[in-house]
Amino acid sequence: MDKGLLLVISGPSGTGKGTVCKKLCEQNPSLYYSISATSRPPRRGEKDNVNYFFLTEEQFLELREKDAFLEWARVYDNYYGTPSQKVQEKLNKGYDVILEIDTQGAKQVKNIAKEAVFIFLLPPSMEDLWLRIKGRGTDGQEVIEKRFAAAHHELQEIENYDYVVINDNVSEAVCKIEAILLAEKCSLIRNEDVLSRLVEEGDKIDLSLHRRNVKKG
Amino acid sequence: MDKGLLLVISGPSGTGKGTVCKKLCEQNPSLYYSISATSRPPRRGEKDNVNYFFLTEEQFLELREKDAFLEWARVYDNYYGTPSQKVQEKLNKGYDVILEIDTQGAKQVKNIAKEAVFIFLLPPSMEDLWLRIKGRGTDGQEVIEKRFAAAHHELQEIENYDYVVINDNVSEAVCKIEAILLAEKCSLIRNEDVLSRLVEEGDKIDLSLHRRNVKKG
Repeated sequence: MDKGLLLVISGPSGTGKGTVCKKLCEQNPSLYYSISATSRPPRRGEKDNVNYFFLTEEQFLELREKDAFLEWARVYDNYYGTPSQKVQEKLNKGYDVILEIDTQGAKQVKNIAKEAVFIFLLPPSMEDLWLRIKGRGTDGQEVIEKRFAAAHHELQEIENYDYVVINDNVSEAVCKIEAILLAEKCSLIRNEDVLSRLVEEGDKIDLSLHRRNVKKG
Repeated sequence: MDKGLLLVISGPSGTGKGTVCKKLCEQNPSLYYSISATSRPPRRGEKDNVNYFFLTEEQFLELREKDAFLEWARVYDNYYGTPSQKVQEKLNKGYDVILEIDTQGAKQVKNIAKEAVFIFLLPPSMEDLWLRIKGRGTDGQEVIEKRFAAAHHELQEIENYDYVVINDNVSEAVCKIEAILLAEKCSLIRNEDVLSRLVEEGDKIDLSLHRRNVKKG
């Protein structure tokens, strides 16, 4: 069975990453959405093994010590990370795996999984992003401005990505990511085994034709 | 309007390139199938401007002299080539353009149009290719064997291509080429203008926020 493809999706907060990834997974049962581990306590309604793998700080640091994370970060007092083993298991079973992570995490993944595919989700315009961030209505002006500045700043990290997908329409964005997945599976470097097989088969047929011709001649 | 994408499709005779390209164009009105020019006389049923642009040898060589071909080749006593101007016109109008050409032609295109996308169509197996070539029923054993050996040899040229598409099912092969087109349009290098625009927009918003905060402060 072919190994699955590791797909890293990043993008500033407010671009609708979550919605896009959710729809993508709903439409593609062969996709596994990687669940992060965190040392922060569950919020109301969050479930262990669904929203996060909830760990104590001690457990998290122990795993980090064992290189058990594809990427990890400390945000304020909490740790977040992508458990490697689960991702590897799914890839080996032929699932494509989505990591919805930030640009710093993506850099870490790129260092150890060069074959991964990196997609950056963009808003149709910065005006639109500004309105989306503001529209959440849960944050004060200062937080909104900080979030926007961070998003703006994150655009500089885009050079590390292979593809950019503009999310002006969720269905179209999902469709584009599906196309990227399918296209990447056709890329030359991911099909070297197919080529070797065809060349070998061709050699055998050529040889048998040659033998037959010698016999006739 | 965005410029179209130049798509080069090659593959050994017998892989069903023609059928795949025909269906691809039928399903995508924004695709233009590039018609080749040739100095060979029309065969029964072939129409000028439809199957080929039929030229005299003199006309062909005059155009070649003026660098009017993206690629050209002499096959026995006849010349074949892809007229650049028509391709450029269509690309500028936003059409994606398909060149169904051989591996030698593809090399020439790669030298002058690095931004083009190169797809190699493959048979599901060499046994299958052998049967398809034989199954045409119009050629003698020697011609069949030569054609198969050529196909086998052509596999060596595959390193010049970006993607390989196995044609075990025409609809699926078409679907994969459509995905490649869509994915390529999302590639980072083809979206630098989008990025510049977003960064610029972000700068303006950041600046106006800054001004307002200074005023308040």
